Amino acid sequence: MTSTRPTPHAANALRERFGAVRAESLSLASPLSAEDQCIQSMPDASPTKWHLAHTTWFFETVLLQVHATGYHAFDPRFHYLFNSYYEALGPRHPRPQRGLLTRPSHDEVLAYRAHVDAAVERLLDAPGDADWDAVASVVTLGMHHEQQHQELLVTDILHAFSCNPLLPAYRPAGAPALRLASAPQPMRWCPRPGGLVEIGHAGEGFAFDNETPRHTALLQPHAMADRLVTCGDFAQFIADGGYQRPDLWLSDGWAAVKAQGWRAPAYWLDADDPRLAHQGSVAGGWQVFGLNGVRPLDRAAPVAQLSLYEAAAYAEWAGARLPTEFEWEAALADPAVTQMTGHVWQWTRSSYDPYPGFRPMPGVAAEYNGKFMVGQVVLRGSSLATPDGHVRPSYRNFFPPAARWQFSGLRLAKDL
Amino acid sequence: MTSTRPTPHAANALRERFGAVRAESLSLASPLSAEDQCIQSMPDASPTKWHLAHTTWFFETVLLQVHATGYHAFDPRFHYLFNSYYEALGPRHPRPQRGLLTRPSHDEVLAYRAHVDAAVERLLDAPGDADWDAVASVVTLGMHHEQQHQELLVTDILHAFSCNPLLPAYRPAGAPALRLASAPQPMRWCPRPGGLVEIGHAGEGFAFDNETPRHTALLQPHAMADRLVTCGDFAQFIADGGYQRPDLWLSDGWAAVKAQGWRAPAYWLDADDPRLAHQGSVAGGWQVFGLNGVRPLDRAAPVAQLSLYEAAAYAEWAGARLPTEFEWEAALADPAVTQMTGHVWQWTRSSYDPYPGFRPMPGVAAEYNGKFMVGQVVLRGSSLATPDGHVRPSYRNFFPPAARWQFSGLRLAKDL
Amino acid sequence: MTSTRPTPHAANALRERFGAVRAESLSLASPLSAEDQCIQSMPDASPTKWHLAHTTWFFETVLLQVHATGYHAFDPRFHYLFNSYYEALGPRHPRPQRGLLTRPSHDEVLAYRAHVDAAVERLLDAPGDADWDAVASVVTLGMHHEQQHQELLVTDILHAFSCNPLLPAYRPAGAPALRLASAPQPMRWCPRPGGLVEIGHAGEGFAFDNETPRHTALLQPHAMADRLVTCGDFAQFIADGGYQRPDLWLSDGWAAVKAQGWRAPAYWLDADDPRLAHQGSVAGGWQVFGLNGVRPLDRAAPVAQLSLYEAAAYAEWAGARLPTEFEWEAALADPAVTQMTGHVWQWTRSSYDPYPGFRPMPGVAAEYNGKFMVGQVVLRGSSLATPDGHVRPSYRNFFPPAARWQFSGLRLAKDL
Amino acid sequence: MTSTRPTPHAANALRERFGAVRAESLSLASPLSAEDQCIQSMPDASPTKWHLAHTTWFFETVLLQVHATGYHAFDPRFHYLFNSYYEALGPRHPRPQRGLLTRPSHDEVLAYRAHVDAAVERLLDAPGDADWDAVASVVTLGMHHEQQHQELLVTDILHAFSCNPLLPAYRPAGAPALRLASAPQPMRWCPRPGGLVEIGHAGEGFAFDNETPRHTALLQPHAMADRLVTCGDFAQFIADGGYQRPDLWLSDGWAAVKAQGWRAPAYWLDADDPRLAHQGSVAGGWQVFGLNGVRPLDRAAPVAQLSLYEAAAYAEWAGARLPTEFEWEAALADPAVTQMTGHVWQWTRSSYDPYPGFRPMPGVAAEYNGKFMVGQVVLRGSSLATPDGHVRPSYRNFFPPAARWQFSGLRLAKDL
Repeated sequence: MTSTRPTPHAANALRERFGAVRAESLSLASPLSAEDQCIQSMPDASPTKWHLAHTTWFFETVLLQVHATGYHAFDPRFHYLFNSYYEALGPRHPRPQRGLLTRPSHDEVLAYRAHVDAAVERLLDAPGDADWDAVASVVTLGMHHEQQHQELLVTDILHAFSCNPLLPAYRPAGAPALRLASAPQPMRWCPRPGGLVEIGHAGEGFAFDNETPRHTALLQPHAMADRLVTCGDFAQFIADGGYQRPDLWLSDGWAAVKAQGWRAPAYWLDADDPRLAHQGSVAGGWQVFGLNGVRPLDRAAPVAQLSLYEAAAYAEWAGARLPTEFEWEAALADPAVTQMTGHVWQWTRSSYDPYPGFRPMPGVAAEYNGKFMVGQVVLRGSSLATPDGHVRPSYRNFFPPAARWQFSGLRLAKDL
Repeated sequence: MTSTRPTPHAANALRERFGAVRAESLSLASPLSAEDQCIQSMPDASPTKWHLAHTTWFFETVLLQVHATGYHAFDPRFHYLFNSYYEALGPRHPRPQRGLLTRPSHDEVLAYRAHVDAAVERLLDAPGDADWDAVASVVTLGMHHEQQHQELLVTDILHAFSCNPLLPAYRPAGAPALRLASAPQPMRWCPRPGGLVEIGHAGEGFAFDNETPRHTALLQPHAMADRLVTCGDFAQFIADGGYQRPDLWLSDGWAAVKAQGWRAPAYWLDADDPRLAHQGSVAGGWQVFGLNGVRPLDRAAPVAQLSLYEAAAYAEWAGARLPTEFEWEAALADPAVTQMTGHVWQWTRSSYDPYPGFRPMPGVAAEYNGKFMVGQVVLRGSSLATPDGHVRPSYRNFFPPAARWQFSGLRLAKDL
Repeated sequence: MTSTRPTPHAANALRERFGAVRAESLSLASPLSAEDQCIQSMPDASPTKWHLAHTTWFFETVLLQVHATGYHAFDPRFHYLFNSYYEALGPRHPRPQRGLLTRPSHDEVLAYRAHVDAAVERLLDAPGDADWDAVASVVTLGMHHEQQHQELLVTDILHAFSCNPLLPAYRPAGAPALRLASAPQPMRWCPRPGGLVEIGHAGEGFAFDNETPRHTALLQPHAMADRLVTCGDFAQFIADGGYQRPDLWLSDGWAAVKAQGWRAPAYWLDADDPRLAHQGSVAGGWQVFGLNGVRPLDRAAPVAQLSLYEAAAYAEWAGARLPTEFEWEAALADPAVTQMTGHVWQWTRSSYDPYPGFRPMPGVAAEYNGKFMVGQVVLRGSSLATPDGHVRPSYRNFFPPAARWQFSGLRLAKDL
Repeated sequence: MTSTRPTPHAANALRERFGAVRAESLSLASPLSAEDQCIQSMPDASPTKWHLAHTTWFFETVLLQVHATGYHAFDPRFHYLFNSYYEALGPRHPRPQRGLLTRPSHDEVLAYRAHVDAAVERLLDAPGDADWDAVASVVTLGMHHEQQHQELLVTDILHAFSCNPLLPAYRPAGAPALRLASAPQPMRWCPRPGGLVEIGHAGEGFAFDNETPRHTALLQPHAMADRLVTCGDFAQFIADGGYQRPDLWLSDGWAAVKAQGWRAPAYWLDADDPRLAHQGSVAGGWQVFGLNGVRPLDRAAPVAQLSLYEAAAYAEWAGARLPTEFEWEAALADPAVTQMTGHVWQWTRSSYDPYPGFRPMPGVAAEYNGKFMVGQVVLRGSSLATPDGHVRPSYRNFFPPAARWQFSGLRLAKDL
């Protein structure tokens, strides 16, 4: 096979984009101290420093060690430390112990990033005999991989801070919070037709394997809510005893409510929460912990930090249901349906199953998506923490139904 | 509302069927001592005696206490003891402690059954002012409910016996084992067309709510294996290192392999298993524990006691995949595709999600199916332990992906 | 070594005693059905049937297989099933799974007992070449071993019944309950001198190794309560907030109170306990579950089913302390100190450490006591469930400090 | 009560000592980064930063807020964050989550220390109306408290580093390691008489309440090893199958061996441990991780990082036993018995029970020792990590029998 060669324009564009994505990770970490960046508050979350290192490891392992002749690993021990879950790439540090890695230090991880960045840039500048198409493809995958970790970096540190009785703010209180409008309109139902629709990714641009192949799906006629469920809506559910009525809940959800003592979304605080005593003057009613610290509940903001169980219970209470991921994707083109992206991920009523004809990406990336296709649920859209340019209409996010630490909310649908 | 009245024929037929179903439960329990009937070997399994009592409680609570004027409960305390998971019916004995109920005794539970049977039969003989349609509907539901528990009764006691180092046989060794043919033909692929198919239950007969509504689904062209995967097939997978290759497994499946030390289907015994020392003369090679006790592996028999994880790993190894539940249902009409029912339940690659337009049954039965629709996987077909007349083409069985104590196996499919 | 020979009288006496001890186990099991005898309600407890079989296994393994020429094992598989914790005797059935052994059946275990009894009696009748001293010694040990299991048989089934919402009675309600006097006198302090005392077993009769060697201990002057703490006393502790005051508790004890939700001794029931709804007419106030089922609290009866933590918290609340095991043993000779045996085991403030010069019994019995000498606490006296003739002044019972399912109470002591 | 007044000399001496103790904590933390100081590797261990803050909290809460008129708390929220286990002082941050406290930052904790130090020094300079005896007593207690945490600071960070695959060194490799002599003499037995001995603390100097009251104890004649058990000795135990022979072990110890897979002391590494691959050239045989990183086993050094179970198993294997704490204290005066302090804490065969007549210190310090007196075992001596001037002959250290992360070893004793 003859090696491909890039056009100067394509190489420049890729290099620029690579630099921007890499810089964004550091920017997201910048409000955090080295201590902050080191901790892991639960096995499902990872330290900021680990995110910074693991995304670098990905470029080193999948790109440089394969395509960059003469590349010298920054530290061979990192191969073990910063593998996440790639069985094909050998053993790895246990996930629940990522928070114990005070060494390598924060500074060493920054040096690791710089070392790898320089090598990637050298490769993009002068690919030599390397197969450019393969290089570009892996760099692109690595950037999308890093963007996924950028969102996790934010939600993971927010979870860690939520475990600190001081409830520190990730960013200054003056920064814009998660909200939409000071007075949301009453929700309206948008009728949506049944019929055959095309679902999934096709064409030139990047997509993850789980969005493919594009295929035809059959919808039944239904209606979709024109906006997200708000905190004000959800407060009504709570006030109506939503967390005390087993008939509203999936069986596993009700078990979680009782075992975990859930009474509200993950970061809502009762007015009498002792942690509020030192938060300055606080009005009565619900307070919500978020990226700006603790703030009074904003009834207009979309509700977030919900498990699938809570989303489904709310929908049942509202006499509606969650949309399927196919209904959601089809509705994206409907101008009457708003708030589809940029606010909160939206739980769907679709389990995370493979599309007809699905095959994993070849090579190490085969482990990227397909092996998680059981026991999880699809979320669609994107959130305020999703990096610009990361998502597509066909994007499938997925989490276990009990996960509550994401910017995950819901929109209603119903049968017609 | 004017109360409906049965035809004599309908009443007779229902009464006869009721008697037959109730008798079958006792027949299945008959090889077991009172001790055997009392134990619970894991939280997911229940004691035989509990199955006998719970199915009776269902008729008492949902039928007699609603429709039988003047019915006197056998023992009001049983309302608490033998509720399974119906939140609407009040608190209940914790599931993991069912094995501690030595009282009521086996004899008392038999008396409970007789008491309820007599009351049901009186009601069927002389419904008086009762709404016959409602009565017939609840009796029918109760019978199907009891049939489900009949299969569980068998699989649960088999699990309990598998935990006893003596590996006792549920039934005499002479009885027919689970097998199909002494020399299975090589598997053949049956091509199956894509297109729109009708899925789910419609019409007069009984069905569970999760099989409804009947709706159109869209299939892609594919091929379906003409027969089940056999023990001989599966032994090849094991011999080829199937349980040592993470690339074949779903992520949660591989975690289970490592955490549980899985090396073969649940009831397969290595030739050097110490429990075989007292099982009489045993040839080399795999032995399999089953309803007839320990027997040498029958390579022609369909493999059973598989988790979804093992089924999916086998399919990956074989270069194929599991069928969707829609493909399975459509293939049922294809005469080239054999062994669809009566041998083992077949794991599909469909998560247990609601059908479009699904609504739970009204009343207490609302908790029957819908609330379990997350985190589980659909199995289709039926097994050697499924009671006659229990299943339909549209029948959807479901278990968590790690469940291994059912007669659960697989058939292969592939994309075309 | 010349083999010893018994006198006819010694042989007869031993045989008679053997028969009486063996019969007592069956008598204790007689109120229980085969189902009752099969269950295990927690890992620390064992099924009645297992006690019956294990005590038989002990005679078979330690006596017959060593000393009875030509003895034929009843069933070689029982060697694995009914070993409790003797590492030197090979692998064994896991303790937490004893409740799964529906096979061998209750009848088979009775046959096992008869088989072994007959063989032991034959050996006692005609020891032949066997070393009589060794035989007599092992038979004696086996009888004391069986008596220990007799008490556990009673406390274990009581625990199992306490887990059954029906709260069944082990024996008819008419039988005498655990009580002492209808109006206990106010407690009086008996002054006790300091000085050197002889502690431990010496002389001809049987004793366990942990009671030896007899040695001198040094006491400080102190006072000992003349009677046990009663249920009435303990109800005052509860009413005074004893279970809400961390200052009264050992650290591990307070952790247990919070983690387990302890609010009273293990088998006390609040007047509003839902299980009382079906217990017939019940007066207000505490009810206590015991061998006769549920009865109103008897204020004069000694309190039982206490952990060491609760006993120590009560003593702290009372401005006193628990006696050491040496103080207890010395006070046994003091006629002013009553209720020392036959009511409840009395927690001491002595950890279960070896006596100076302690050596385990030789042979398999080396594992009998010594290997448990860490992390446990000594109880002295005996309880209503202790078989006649089983204990001695030097007898050391021991349990972990959190154990609550024994007839365990306390008596106060204080420094002078 | 008239307030007491210090002599200038006493005040100066106390202030000087206070400054030295406080400085030592910072010195111990100085090799560690802010990241290092933040992590918690298991619930029993605490972060360095937490130790620095908690010891400061102790002075603030027990000294300044009681005795320093007008003292202004550094941050009222720290009262909740840095309480360890004092129930009387209100609720506290859960122990297992100490590692999540990235805020307050390392710098803030240093400022907290400076703030409290200044206030304490002001109080010592000018006690004003404060009761000097009380002040001096609390300051002294606080210094001893801080010294205890200094040793924990070292052992806790060593544990944290032991969980990092890089096995970082706490201090430069050139620093002196834990060792005694390049060629230990063969162990010799020192005969020790029985009889009455005085045990415990008496006199003017500081002691913890658990060392009191001084009282007479009775010893049996015995022999004490003249030196500690070395790594070379212990390697023989391992080579002789010590970790495979249940007969050597206490029952709970053997369970720990099997459950945890123990094969050597906690920080010993097999020659084929994968973590050694990046540790530079490493000779064959055991390697030991310690304060200087990984080094080859020093056969002359005392063995450390042992649980009580391992110490007792070694003693059993050696045909000896552990000394009681009374034997140990009496032997301290015997010049033939060496290595009693400064190397490793020595497990005794004495459970941690109260001395006759023990009463806790008054006030908040009542929770200091007494409430832990169950389920733990006494260690005597001191270790290389024990601060100078911290211990006394009567000093009683204590840990649960499974604890392995201390510098804990053993010395042999035997009956005569």
